[in-house]
Amino acid sequence: MRTPEELREAVEEHLAALAFAPELGGLAEVVRYALDPGGKRIRPVLCLAVAETCGAEVRDALPAGAALELVHTFSLVHDDLPALDDDAERRGRPSAHVAHGEGVALLAGDALLAEAVRLALSYDDPALVRELVEATIGMIGGQYRDVTGDDEDLAELHALKTGRLFAAAVGLGLRVARVPEAAQRPWRVFGQEIGLLFQLVDDILDDDGVVERVGGAEARRLADEAARRARERVTALRGDTSTLLELVESLAVRTT
Amino acid sequence: MRTPEELREAVEEHLAALAFAPELGGLAEVVRYALDPGGKRIRPVLCLAVAETCGAEVRDALPAGAALELVHTFSLVHDDLPALDDDAERRGRPSAHVAHGEGVALLAGDALLAEAVRLALSYDDPALVRELVEATIGMIGGQYRDVTGDDEDLAELHALKTGRLFAAAVGLGLRVARVPEAAQRPWRVFGQEIGLLFQLVDDILDDDGVVERVGGAEARRLADEAARRARERVTALRGDTSTLLELVESLAVRTT
Repeated sequence: MRTPEELREAVEEHLAALAFAPELGGLAEVVRYALDPGGKRIRPVLCLAVAETCGAEVRDALPAGAALELVHTFSLVHDDLPALDDDAERRGRPSAHVAHGEGVALLAGDALLAEAVRLALSYDDPALVRELVEATIGMIGGQYRDVTGDDEDLAELHALKTGRLFAAAVGLGLRVARVPEAAQRPWRVFGQEIGLLFQLVDDILDDDGVVERVGGAEARRLADEAARRARERVTALRGDTSTLLELVESLAVRTT
Repeated sequence: MRTPEELREAVEEHLAALAFAPELGGLAEVVRYALDPGGKRIRPVLCLAVAETCGAEVRDALPAGAALELVHTFSLVHDDLPALDDDAERRGRPSAHVAHGEGVALLAGDALLAEAVRLALSYDDPALVRELVEATIGMIGGQYRDVTGDDEDLAELHALKTGRLFAAAVGLGLRVARVPEAAQRPWRVFGQEIGLLFQLVDDILDDDGVVERVGGAEARRLADEAARRARERVTALRGDTSTLLELVESLAVRTT
């Protein structure tokens, strides 16, 4: 089993070598700018770790992992636009629209989503594309609730905006490894817990979301609970789960 | 064979009855607003006409046609945003961002693209999704050239921005009818001609693009030439091509 850091490096290399459709012309550079190193690559690393734990070769999961990262990056590029969060910085650099203009950033986001689908289509099993696209639709629904302030049910908002793509990371890993549907359930439950853990720690680091609702101490308690449940879920899985456990631990204590 | 108008009505009915993912919540209404009647539905009508001419049932081509219209509408919603064309009106009504706000319109465009892929996934043949997504990437590349003023090669810009989705309309119709790859070529050449005809007439009606380059009279001559070639291409196709011919004639003389 490779460590999370080794998997992250494999993802980084794969993303850097991605060939985008030649029709994109100069837009491909903007897509690359948005995808540039600096991200944690948690979703693809999770996908690769699940696939390898289930007996697949890491390299076979790389296009699926890249597709997840492209969908995530598409959502960041569009979220950062003035029409939504209006964030001028992303990962310590000017965000895509600041560096390349709003119109171009909008199109780069569109291209990232379309290229993600193209990557997922490189697998014979159309269930991979379906799972990726349905998760994307859920994520967009979560963003809509966030934008319109329809966040009364914060748990639902998070389950959509963050949880769906984490669940798809696990789901795509399972599909790459051809794990039968009947054996997927414990993995998918684990996927929900790790997604929730990620979101809770995110809110603690950003001092918003759950922290605004229940306070910092209670949010930390909820995150510790989620980490405990995620660990338990990992223990119930088959195979060498060392990398998955390490991933849970690193998400529980992350500071960025 | 149904007439273009009968096919358009079938498309309209199918679009009105589309079930979007429940996770979209209130965003589904904005998606419906953008999709509301008033459009010419040329791409889905072309797809249906090709499928029926090739022996398929019209109803089997409806999801493919709807997917094309969703991709087209996604591009309109994003194009109309202030970051791109900044158009406050579309089909005689306030455009999506004027009616629903910029952020929500941006997300509605994203949802239209994702839902289009989901519709194309309803077919067993993944080649339909691939063709739709590759055409979408080409279209985005065309929009990028348009936005950045990289329009020195206007023919290439048009071939991408308009031509690719017209070509996909023909391609998806062929795939729904399970026309073997070896027999697709004359249809695809026809698809190029009808896409070019559409774009030339569009420029004449909008008094821009080709008209700015070569003048109105020459643009009209080019459009007449394209119509003549499209008619010739139809004559070379097998089956009852009456609907396709009618479609070419209506595109050649359209005034809106």
